[in-house]
Amino acid sequence: MGKRFERIKAPELQERVVSAEEAASWIQDGMTLGLSGFTQAGDAKAVPLALAKRAEFETFKVNVYTGASLGSNIDTVFAQSGIVHKRLPFQSDPVMRRKINEGAMLYTDHHLSHTAEWIRDGVITPIDFAIIEAISITKDGMIIPTTSVGNSAIFAQYAKNVIVEINTEQPERLYRLHDIYDTGTHEGRNPIPLTHVADRIGTTGIPVDMEKIRGIVFTDQIDSPSTIVPPDSETEAIASHLLALLRSEIKAGRLTEKLAPIQSGVGSVANSALRGLIDSEFHDLEMYSEVLQDAVFDLIDADVLRFASGSAITLSKEKMAQVYSDFRKYEDKIVLRPQEITNHPGLIRRLGLIAVNTALEFDIYGNVNSTHVSGTKMMNGIGGSGDFARNSRLSIFVSKSTAKGGNISSVVPFVTHVDHTEHDVDVLITEHGYADLRGLAPRERAGLIIENCADPTYRDQLSGYYEEALTRGGQTPHVLEKAFSWYQRLAETGSMLEK
Amino acid sequence: MGKRFERIKAPELQERVVSAEEAASWIQDGMTLGLSGFTQAGDAKAVPLALAKRAEFETFKVNVYTGASLGSNIDTVFAQSGIVHKRLPFQSDPVMRRKINEGAMLYTDHHLSHTAEWIRDGVITPIDFAIIEAISITKDGMIIPTTSVGNSAIFAQYAKNVIVEINTEQPERLYRLHDIYDTGTHEGRNPIPLTHVADRIGTTGIPVDMEKIRGIVFTDQIDSPSTIVPPDSETEAIASHLLALLRSEIKAGRLTEKLAPIQSGVGSVANSALRGLIDSEFHDLEMYSEVLQDAVFDLIDADVLRFASGSAITLSKEKMAQVYSDFRKYEDKIVLRPQEITNHPGLIRRLGLIAVNTALEFDIYGNVNSTHVSGTKMMNGIGGSGDFARNSRLSIFVSKSTAKGGNISSVVPFVTHVDHTEHDVDVLITEHGYADLRGLAPRERAGLIIENCADPTYRDQLSGYYEEALTRGGQTPHVLEKAFSWYQRLAETGSMLEK
Repeated sequence: MGKRFERIKAPELQERVVSAEEAASWIQDGMTLGLSGFTQAGDAKAVPLALAKRAEFETFKVNVYTGASLGSNIDTVFAQSGIVHKRLPFQSDPVMRRKINEGAMLYTDHHLSHTAEWIRDGVITPIDFAIIEAISITKDGMIIPTTSVGNSAIFAQYAKNVIVEINTEQPERLYRLHDIYDTGTHEGRNPIPLTHVADRIGTTGIPVDMEKIRGIVFTDQIDSPSTIVPPDSETEAIASHLLALLRSEIKAGRLTEKLAPIQSGVGSVANSALRGLIDSEFHDLEMYSEVLQDAVFDLIDADVLRFASGSAITLSKEKMAQVYSDFRKYEDKIVLRPQEITNHPGLIRRLGLIAVNTALEFDIYGNVNSTHVSGTKMMNGIGGSGDFARNSRLSIFVSKSTAKGGNISSVVPFVTHVDHTEHDVDVLITEHGYADLRGLAPRERAGLIIENCADPTYRDQLSGYYEEALTRGGQTPHVLEKAFSWYQRLAETGSMLEK
Repeated sequence: MGKRFERIKAPELQERVVSAEEAASWIQDGMTLGLSGFTQAGDAKAVPLALAKRAEFETFKVNVYTGASLGSNIDTVFAQSGIVHKRLPFQSDPVMRRKINEGAMLYTDHHLSHTAEWIRDGVITPIDFAIIEAISITKDGMIIPTTSVGNSAIFAQYAKNVIVEINTEQPERLYRLHDIYDTGTHEGRNPIPLTHVADRIGTTGIPVDMEKIRGIVFTDQIDSPSTIVPPDSETEAIASHLLALLRSEIKAGRLTEKLAPIQSGVGSVANSALRGLIDSEFHDLEMYSEVLQDAVFDLIDADVLRFASGSAITLSKEKMAQVYSDFRKYEDKIVLRPQEITNHPGLIRRLGLIAVNTALEFDIYGNVNSTHVSGTKMMNGIGGSGDFARNSRLSIFVSKSTAKGGNISSVVPFVTHVDHTEHDVDVLITEHGYADLRGLAPRERAGLIIENCADPTYRDQLSGYYEEALTRGGQTPHVLEKAFSWYQRLAETGSMLEK
C-alpha cells in the first residue's frame, strides 16, 4: 500500500482511498461544498480541480463555502468554468471578481467569524461535501489540517459527507500546530476559556464521525506562495507613523513596550508595517491574528515576537522553504485556530487587541470602505476586518492617501460603501500621518483627517467641501448633492482632482 | 439625624451629607462628569439641576458622560444653559439635539458597550466627579443603584470624586435588583462567567473606595415616566410580521417555542412588537436587553416571560405605580447589570439573542441608518443597536415604511448614514412584511426588500433605480449620481415621490 498510507492511522479508513476524479464524481448539480483553505493556505486542491474539469463536458452549479480566499488557481478555474452558483465568505481572485461584478455568480461577503454560526444555526444551505486538506488522519478518525484551519472544523462537523485530501508534501511535524475548539450550539454554551494568546483550549485535530469520511485522496501539491510587494517609501512612511502612534500610547500610559496582542490584515502595507517593528524598542510581542505572513516569522527570528496565534500561514516562496525546513524553531511559538476563535468578538474584546487593517478609502468623518470600488465593484471582501475593528482596544486602518498616480484620493467626502462605520474606527494612517479619532465628535474629526491624512493636492478640495457642508449644519455636515461628485469627476475626467 | 440617614449604613459617611447646591459648587469649569442614568431611569437629578442653576450667574463648561439618555429635563436644561462642552454616549432630547446639530455643543455618538473600555483604557478625558443616584450605601461603602445601572459602576470606580444622591422615594426593596460585574483591565482578564440570562455573577452594589465619596445628597424626585404611544395599525402589522418570522424559524427547526433570549430596542414600535408576544403560543421566554419597558412587565404578568435581564427599568406613569407598589412579584424575575455586560459582544454571541431594533431608514441592499436625518442631523444616537445587531443570532430591524404622511420613504436607494452595514442586518420588517436577508448576495436582497418592505407607492421608483443600477453592473449596483437624489427631491418638493 506504500508509505503514504501511514498517514491514515485508522486502518478501517485506508480502504476509502480513491482518485481525485472519483471523489469529484460524487458531487452533483445543486450541491453545496465546504472547502478548506484560508488566504491560499491549506486549501483542498485535487478534488476541486478535478471537479472543475468535469465542467468541460457537463453543466452543473455548486455553492462554494471556504475559510477565506483560495490559492492554486482554484477560484480562477471555478470562475472560468462557471460552476459556482454562490460563493462565501471571502475571495480575492481577479477572474472571480470580474464574474461577481458582472452578476454571473453570487457572492455573499460577510464577517469571517460569522460563517460558523450560520452553519450551526442552519441559516445557510447545508453542506453536502466538506473537502479538507490534511497531513494525516489519527487512529480515532481525527483530521489533522495542514497550513490553515479556517472553517474546516465546522465544515467537517456539519457536512453530510467528508472528503479528506492528504497532502504528503506537508510534513507530519505540523501535528500539534492546530488547536481546534468548538463553541457548541447556543443552548448552554460555556465561556471560551482562552485568556492568553498562547493558550491551548481544544483538540489537536478535527474530530469527525468516521462514518462520514466518504473518501480519501492523496495529493502532493503545495500551497501557492504569496506575492509580497517590497516596501516603498509610502508603506515605510505608514509604518513609521504606526510606530509613532504606538510610542505616543506608551507615553500616555495606555500601553507598555510589550504593546498588546497585535492583529494585522493581509497584504503588503500590513506586512511592511509589521516589519517596521523589527528594529523598534518593542519586545516580547504577541500576535492574535488571522494570517501569519512573512513578517511574523521575521519578527520571531529577530526575537521580538514571543508568540503568534492565527488561522493560516501564508508565505512567499522563499520564506516557505525556510520556515518548513526549520519548523522546529517555530513550533512552540505558533498555533492555528478556527477562524471563529481567531476572530471571535468576545476574545478580541477580552484580549484587548491592537488591530491594523487596510482601507480602500475613508471619509472625512472616519467611515471606512474596505470592499467596493466606487461603491459598486467588489474587490475582495470585508474578511475579518469588521470582527477586529469593532472589538479591538485600538482599531487602526491604513491606506496610501492616493491611488492611480494621484488621480484617486483615498480620503473622500463620503465613502461609497461603508464596511466600518464611524463608530468602529479609532485611528487612520496614511503616508502623511495619523488621525486619532478616539472620543471625537464628527466636527472634530474632519479637520484632523484632512490635515493629517489627505494628500496635500486634495486638502483644499476636501476643506472646501467641509466648509460648504458646515453652512448646512448638523452633527455630520454634508452637501448630499455633491457627496459623490468626486466619483463622477473621476469617471468623466480620469481624476478626482478639480481643474 | 432623621430616618433618611438610615439609608447610609456606613456611619463614617453620614457626616458627608451636603445640599445639592454645595455639591454642585465643587464642580469647576472644564471638569468632566459621569452621571448615572439610562433611558431616563436612575439619573442623578438634584446635583445636575443645581449645577445648571449656577449657569444663570457664571460661565463654565463641563463634559457630560452618562449611561444613555437622561430624564427629568436634565439634558434640556443642560442644553439650554449652554454648560455642556461634550456629551456622550447617547441622548434623545429635542433641545439638546438642536444644539448638537447647530454645532453649539459636541456629541460623541458611540456603542453603549464601549464607554467602559474607553474609561478603563484612558482613551477619553478622565472623570472628575461621578454623580450616582442610589437607594442606599452599605456598611462597607458599596453604592446600591436605583432603577438603572448603565455606566454608574465604571464611573464610580474611575472618577476622582464621587457624589451619591440617595433617593428616599425609591424603595429599599430594590436591594438585590442589581448585579455588578467588572471585567477588569485587559491584562489577565478572565472569561465573563455568565451563561444564562438569570445568572448572578457580581456584587449587589457598586464597590467604591469610601475615601472618594466626597458628598452625599438626599433627593426624593422620582424618574420621569416614559411616553408610550399606543399601538396603531402599522405597529400592529409590524408585530404580526415579527410573529410570522419567529414561527417560520420554528418551522425550519432553528428555534423552539421558547425562542431565544430577546433584546428589544426602546420605543413604541418595539414595545408594541413585544406586546404582540402576549397572545402567542410562545412561552418561557427570556429577555437579555438594555431597557425593560412596560411590555416586559405585561409579559411577566401574563406568565409568558420567565426572566428579564436589563440595564434600566423605564416605565410609563401608570406602570411605574403598579410595578413599584408590588415589586415582590417581579424581584426574582429581573436583574439590572452594567451596560458593558448587557451589551457585551461576547455574551450576545454566547447567548444567541434575537435582537429587535428600530431603523430610521434602510436601503435596498440592507444597510441601516439609525441616527441621522438626511445624513446630517442627529436624532438620538446609535445606542446599543450596533452591539446587538452585530453579534445576535437573529438581527432584526423594524421601521414603518414611510414617514411624514408618506412623503418620506424609509426604504431608499442609498442610506445617507450607515450605522449598521449590510453585513450586520439579518431581517428587515415594515408594516408590509419582512425581508429575510440571511446568506443573500446584494442582488438577491434588492428585489426582496422592495417587494416585501417598501410602501407600494414607492416600489416602482425603487425598482426603477435598481434596474438602472443593474445596467452599470457590480456586486452592489448603484447609480451614484442619483443615489441621494431622493433627498434633494424631498428638500425641493416636500416629498421623495416622483411626480
